[in-house]
Amino acid sequence: MLVPRLIERKRDGDRLSPGEWEAITRSYGAGEIPDYQMAALLMAIYFRGMDREETAALMGAMLGSGASLDLGGLGKARIDKHSTGGVGDKVSLLLAPIVSSLGIAVPMMSGRGLGHTGGTLDKLESIPGFRTGLSLDEARRQLETIGCAMIGQTGEIAPVDKRLYALRDATSTVESIPLIAASIMSKKLAEGLTGLVLDIKRGSGAFLPSFDRGVELAELMIALGQAAGVPVVALMTAMDRPLGRACGNALEVEEAIQCLHGEGPPDVMEVTYTLGAEMLVLGGIARSVDEARRRMEVCVSSGKGAEQFERIIEAQGGDPSVVDDPSRLPQAKVVEFYASPRQGVVARVEPRAIGRGVTALGGGRRRMEDAVDPSVGFVIRARPGDVVKVGEPLATVFSRDEAGLAAGMAALSEGITIADEADPPLPLVSHRVTRDGIAVYEAEPWVRTAEYPVYRGGFGT
Amino acid sequence: MLVPRLIERKRDGDRLSPGEWEAITRSYGAGEIPDYQMAALLMAIYFRGMDREETAALMGAMLGSGASLDLGGLGKARIDKHSTGGVGDKVSLLLAPIVSSLGIAVPMMSGRGLGHTGGTLDKLESIPGFRTGLSLDEARRQLETIGCAMIGQTGEIAPVDKRLYALRDATSTVESIPLIAASIMSKKLAEGLTGLVLDIKRGSGAFLPSFDRGVELAELMIALGQAAGVPVVALMTAMDRPLGRACGNALEVEEAIQCLHGEGPPDVMEVTYTLGAEMLVLGGIARSVDEARRRMEVCVSSGKGAEQFERIIEAQGGDPSVVDDPSRLPQAKVVEFYASPRQGVVARVEPRAIGRGVTALGGGRRRMEDAVDPSVGFVIRARPGDVVKVGEPLATVFSRDEAGLAAGMAALSEGITIADEADPPLPLVSHRVTRDGIAVYEAEPWVRTAEYPVYRGGFGT
Repeated sequence: MLVPRLIERKRDGDRLSPGEWEAITRSYGAGEIPDYQMAALLMAIYFRGMDREETAALMGAMLGSGASLDLGGLGKARIDKHSTGGVGDKVSLLLAPIVSSLGIAVPMMSGRGLGHTGGTLDKLESIPGFRTGLSLDEARRQLETIGCAMIGQTGEIAPVDKRLYALRDATSTVESIPLIAASIMSKKLAEGLTGLVLDIKRGSGAFLPSFDRGVELAELMIALGQAAGVPVVALMTAMDRPLGRACGNALEVEEAIQCLHGEGPPDVMEVTYTLGAEMLVLGGIARSVDEARRRMEVCVSSGKGAEQFERIIEAQGGDPSVVDDPSRLPQAKVVEFYASPRQGVVARVEPRAIGRGVTALGGGRRRMEDAVDPSVGFVIRARPGDVVKVGEPLATVFSRDEAGLAAGMAALSEGITIADEADPPLPLVSHRVTRDGIAVYEAEPWVRTAEYPVYRGGFGT
Repeated sequence: MLVPRLIERKRDGDRLSPGEWEAITRSYGAGEIPDYQMAALLMAIYFRGMDREETAALMGAMLGSGASLDLGGLGKARIDKHSTGGVGDKVSLLLAPIVSSLGIAVPMMSGRGLGHTGGTLDKLESIPGFRTGLSLDEARRQLETIGCAMIGQTGEIAPVDKRLYALRDATSTVESIPLIAASIMSKKLAEGLTGLVLDIKRGSGAFLPSFDRGVELAELMIALGQAAGVPVVALMTAMDRPLGRACGNALEVEEAIQCLHGEGPPDVMEVTYTLGAEMLVLGGIARSVDEARRRMEVCVSSGKGAEQFERIIEAQGGDPSVVDDPSRLPQAKVVEFYASPRQGVVARVEPRAIGRGVTALGGGRRRMEDAVDPSVGFVIRARPGDVVKVGEPLATVFSRDEAGLAAGMAALSEGITIADEADPPLPLVSHRVTRDGIAVYEAEPWVRTAEYPVYRGGFGT
């Protein structure tokens, strides 16, 4: 295999054969292709793309570079959810207990926060004692006993993907749709799934802000799943503002617990129910999303979801009493309101600025090796469309010291825009993408009640 | 300096500042930027290009990464010639002795053959004892005594360029005009030149076959020279067929010696005189190219050029008696004619096929670490436009064994096309590019004699 010739062909817009992708991946995994040649190939892919067959071959080879969870013996559906990442998105913390308590195995493999977006592993680890570094064997046993395991990408799973991802991060070749899709799907398919639901974020705070690029990613992942016999359904959700109120690791766990007690913000519940309903239908537990939603509501109101969360925490070495008493979570030393600097309408709550603010407080990562402080972050009451007065509290900063407080205040000042008027935000769940194509998402009638609208005041809706 | 951010900006079509290019080059030279990040940046440059200021900054930083020849004390003009590389091109072996015997210092730094093109260093080393690995100090002393030194890129000169070139070769990022221009000029300017003449090849056997890309490269190198205060003149010459008859290291030295004795093929003499005349005019030795050509002709007919070649060979440890007795050069063991398979007109003599044939015979390199056999190659009598009969000898194969002979015959069969009719070849010297722009090259009247036309038979010229 002449690697420069393969790079040259991709550079010039040729396609490489599935066999060539397999050979490249295998040789890279074996250390026979150096990082510098792979980096050049990645940049050529960035510019030239890969077609579906090429992407499927790369994904398959990355998947095959490691072990997979063999969950065939569980005798039930295995469904996971993947989100392209956002600010304040604690939906995984809700879906895992709710959906697994309803009879579906949820082998949830998550990542850490990087840049402006948070990561489920960091959030879970803010629970005292919680251990995310399970081996595949431990995860399988836990799936057998309680139907859910919340883990990170172990060294056993798709090791070539792990190396490639680090290389992409160092060479500015992350934002390539086929590379993103192959990377995600190589990990997700290693979970031994029977179905997958995708939350594709759109809007300014999304990893891919453009709607069209988000749809492209969704369609590609659906095709990759289909080729592997795993049905995939994607929903496009809004990330032009944070999801819910809490942004920061322990704060988001606390908000997730509120949600499991039926006291969460309506937008978090809506995204959770929408995604979870797709999981339940894919898993054959409900015949319609309508039925599925009702089952999830009962799961929350009965306390079954909260109990299952306790079970998961306990199984993974954490302190389950946080579910009854969230004050046992790490607490910030300095807490202060952020007051509105003027009268007007909340025009924007910019997720990137808020996410960077969490990082500035010490709660996120600039580089993968950074440590995070679980206690810090924001709780943001202001939502786009709110009419506010001067001095009205819009948010709360949770910091470890006075310097962090100033950084947090500055981030809020940058992130929250008060104006005389404002455009409406994006619809919370706007489209549903399946192998049959894309359709505008139609909310269930009960969603269109006075209770739901995240979007209030001033715009006649 | 956040390298991924710099890569990202170039990837997205931004320009980087001169200071950023200097920092990148310095950090790469110091080992602070790993090869994989540089490889991604090179591929981004391949797709996005660099403007003149960026290219000049990269070139200047590569030049500054090493030592330069300080030839100010010579008290005379220092002019070199650079060719973009071809098959059968032994012009450097003629220009160095002729031009230096006429009072111009020629600090000629050349490369080795790679792929289908030959390299001057390999040709020189076919002369028994010839040493091309002079240090800069040795080269300077030799320039003082005999006015010429023919050397390779020492480790002292532009070491970052040397590393970058190897990286480009391994990552298929060689064919980027700004990277080519910066690489060549960083080495040429290290020779302490007062002027430079470029031979930009065009046609199917050229490194950049496209005329427009060749002109773009010429104009960029002229601008880079100008920015450094070194006047540069470029001539566009034909590489849709080999130059001269001999292709192969010792065979080309023998043909160069024939040329110095006034017995060379007319196309080699024409390119030599055309390029050399520009060197003499740039060096202030002649007031016009017409006068310069006459002085070069006298230099050849008087034997001064051949004597100077002997001096250069002797100074660099070689056996100068090869100039009087080329049979002292390495001789191939197996020599065989290649006969025309049919009657017709020679439509093409394809340089890439011929060059690959030399490599197949063992006389060229597939990879930089390959050894070359100096004795092997071809002498090709057939030229585009020749009318030939069945069985007429078109070329001679020089091989070390019977297996090589078969490979050589196959290469000639692939490279030489006999047809019923044929299009005329490219003009030998077609354009002249200077800082004032590009002009059609007008040959001196004496060139248009019956003696000259390389191109014979069948086409009414």
